[in-house]
Amino acid sequence: MSAPMGRSRLETFSDGVFAIAITLLVLTISEPTNYADLGHELALRWPSFIAYVVSFAVIGIMWLNHHTVFTYLRGVDRTFIFLNLFLLMTIAFLPYPTGVLGLALGKGQGTGTAAIAYGVTMAVNALAWVALWLYASGRRRLLADSFPEEQRRTATVLFTAGALLYGAALGLAFVGAYAFLAVQGALAVYYALDPIARWLARSHGSEGPIETQGAPGPGDD
Amino acid sequence: MSAPMGRSRLETFSDGVFAIAITLLVLTISEPTNYADLGHELALRWPSFIAYVVSFAVIGIMWLNHHTVFTYLRGVDRTFIFLNLFLLMTIAFLPYPTGVLGLALGKGQGTGTAAIAYGVTMAVNALAWVALWLYASGRRRLLADSFPEEQRRTATVLFTAGALLYGAALGLAFVGAYAFLAVQGALAVYYALDPIARWLARSHGSEGPIETQGAPGPGDD
Amino acid sequence: MSAPMGRSRLETFSDGVFAIAITLLVLTISEPTNYADLGHELALRWPSFIAYVVSFAVIGIMWLNHHTVFTYLRGVDRTFIFLNLFLLMTIAFLPYPTGVLGLALGKGQGTGTAAIAYGVTMAVNALAWVALWLYASGRRRLLADSFPEEQRRTATVLFTAGALLYGAALGLAFVGAYAFLAVQGALAVYYALDPIARWLARSHGSEGPIETQGAPGPGDD
Amino acid sequence: MSAPMGRSRLETFSDGVFAIAITLLVLTISEPTNYADLGHELALRWPSFIAYVVSFAVIGIMWLNHHTVFTYLRGVDRTFIFLNLFLLMTIAFLPYPTGVLGLALGKGQGTGTAAIAYGVTMAVNALAWVALWLYASGRRRLLADSFPEEQRRTATVLFTAGALLYGAALGLAFVGAYAFLAVQGALAVYYALDPIARWLARSHGSEGPIETQGAPGPGDD
Repeated sequence: MSAPMGRSRLETFSDGVFAIAITLLVLTISEPTNYADLGHELALRWPSFIAYVVSFAVIGIMWLNHHTVFTYLRGVDRTFIFLNLFLLMTIAFLPYPTGVLGLALGKGQGTGTAAIAYGVTMAVNALAWVALWLYASGRRRLLADSFPEEQRRTATVLFTAGALLYGAALGLAFVGAYAFLAVQGALAVYYALDPIARWLARSHGSEGPIETQGAPGPGDD
Repeated sequence: MSAPMGRSRLETFSDGVFAIAITLLVLTISEPTNYADLGHELALRWPSFIAYVVSFAVIGIMWLNHHTVFTYLRGVDRTFIFLNLFLLMTIAFLPYPTGVLGLALGKGQGTGTAAIAYGVTMAVNALAWVALWLYASGRRRLLADSFPEEQRRTATVLFTAGALLYGAALGLAFVGAYAFLAVQGALAVYYALDPIARWLARSHGSEGPIETQGAPGPGDD
Repeated sequence: MSAPMGRSRLETFSDGVFAIAITLLVLTISEPTNYADLGHELALRWPSFIAYVVSFAVIGIMWLNHHTVFTYLRGVDRTFIFLNLFLLMTIAFLPYPTGVLGLALGKGQGTGTAAIAYGVTMAVNALAWVALWLYASGRRRLLADSFPEEQRRTATVLFTAGALLYGAALGLAFVGAYAFLAVQGALAVYYALDPIARWLARSHGSEGPIETQGAPGPGDD
Repeated sequence: MSAPMGRSRLETFSDGVFAIAITLLVLTISEPTNYADLGHELALRWPSFIAYVVSFAVIGIMWLNHHTVFTYLRGVDRTFIFLNLFLLMTIAFLPYPTGVLGLALGKGQGTGTAAIAYGVTMAVNALAWVALWLYASGRRRLLADSFPEEQRRTATVLFTAGALLYGAALGLAFVGAYAFLAVQGALAVYYALDPIARWLARSHGSEGPIETQGAPGPGDD
């Protein structure tokens, strides 16, 4: 298999998709139609504002964890690039169910269906994460030498647990859309706390602010 | 706490969000509907053009000051990244109130409400700036060693003053939308003059054009 | 002819256009209008979701092959930059026929015309690829010294074959829109398998994951 | 005046705005409304496709010339950054008159007004270019030492001539929209031929493809 590109190039392209998807989210909030009663119109849109905040947090935290995963790698290959493309496809799609969920909650119609649409997107996204990790870590295929072997299984368990969590959250979409949205926010916070990196940090003992000159991993350019 | 990424990577992602948000602003100007009387239709949209110019200046100057703040840092940590994400969320949101304000002024309906919506966005944004600065500068947590201690308090006063100014501008939204928009433009110019950097420059004595090879801070890559 | 920019700058700009076009694709899926029957509304949009996936794959794989081609070059000149701009124009245009094709299939109206519109876009895009390659490789104008002469003709044949394939696929648009869309997906997979790079890799013998520090070609910065 | 950022950072941000604006152009082509007669609907939109191509060429060539100008500089200062921001504002705005002109020509209504709107945008843009150049080159304020003094006046004449050409093109908008659009395309080609760089190249004698490792100017990173 030939060498299509360096790790940093793939990361830059991914960063671009993350940045664009997160900024496009604002377009999912529908414009007011009746300016004579603008205050009421905006108040009706509060579920869209909530959905905006939740999806912004979701994409922002995924972007952060995407980098964490990349710091564990010594390189990428063509299969990894396609798995990463599949992951990006689910992230770039997120503005669509975000807009639908916000509008459904605002209208009080189709909320369950909208929550399921959002939940399916997140579940497919979680599967993409698991696939990316299993491929990269399986038989240490792409892992950096500095990544400790004893942490490999731990990270795999945590990634799989994340996918199961999103699967369970999807089940919740059948119960109620507000509960579902709250759980999506809670899951984002769970990932923000980053159990994998913390777990690893405890054994590595890294602390304090990141020196700007010191790259967090090999080949960070 | 583990090292999620270098400072430059966070800056690149932030730059992407700034660049996308500033370019999306053009989508906030509504398309004409009656082409038989296009001149009149475009003339009716002049408040949208003004709102476009003001928000373009606001985001452009924030982008510039974002870099200025980053040059004061020796690195970033996870909490800083989340505070920065919160800041970006308020900036990526700005196209929405920009579009609403332009349309409200064009229709002459809901102008007060639209100004308040814009003002609340800017006030939350100002709070995000203060939070980012207080976290980074508190006990010199993330400040570069070269950043003079005597300037730390000055910068904090100026950041807090900025937040108070935006709070006061929000109050103005209750008075009149045009006055409010004019003040937003004036505040953008105020930040363009960059009192913090000027204040610091006087003591550091840096002058003239920036040499392209000389990075303005550590780790500028 | 003067030197307008380095190769990496052109690649970064191109990457930006690829990343934005791929992320804008989600805007081609029309918002539901009747939330009382949201499940049905979303089900009606499945052709738009399929078109989204196909075009995402198309742009993603083109982005990858764009890099592969660039690794064969020792530099770029002004003519190459304009040919590349022409290529980017066809890629940035793809969201339009994608949206039209998805909507046409969803409505069951104008499917043939929509497939032709998509096919013409892809055929012009294939011509842009051929032009880019013929210019860069003709008399080894821009090829890196390390690119083996015996592979030049092979790559030219494969590029031209690709253009003929897209021409043939265009013919298929006159037969049926679903068959056409399936073939577009198949062509994307064909390019994903990357016959050119494989062919070259066999003679070069490169294998395994790409080391992050090792640039895959000259001047990869 | 303090040092807000290195030249390359400003260039990266500018590149982002160029790439986004050029890719957003596709959104200016209105979606068909009647899919039962899709061929006719698309045929009616051919002026929008032409306007897309012209504006894509305009932005692409401006992006290229933006880099050429930057290679003449040894650095940037705060005033230059604001002039550059003003320039970017006119470029990010271009999708709006592009969409209006395409729709006006398609409807056969308001074509003169639409051409004037496009022409005013381009004239303001030309003024921004002149301001940027006069500021950077005046008393060699930001020019690189390697930029020959005898070419400074030549470049100034050519930049000013460009502004006058766009002013004259604006006058043409009052005559006819199609003639106007044709002239915009011709002006883009004129800039593509890049008289300034050619003029300078003749005296410098640079030739052939650009080596990827060799930066075309100081500080190109």
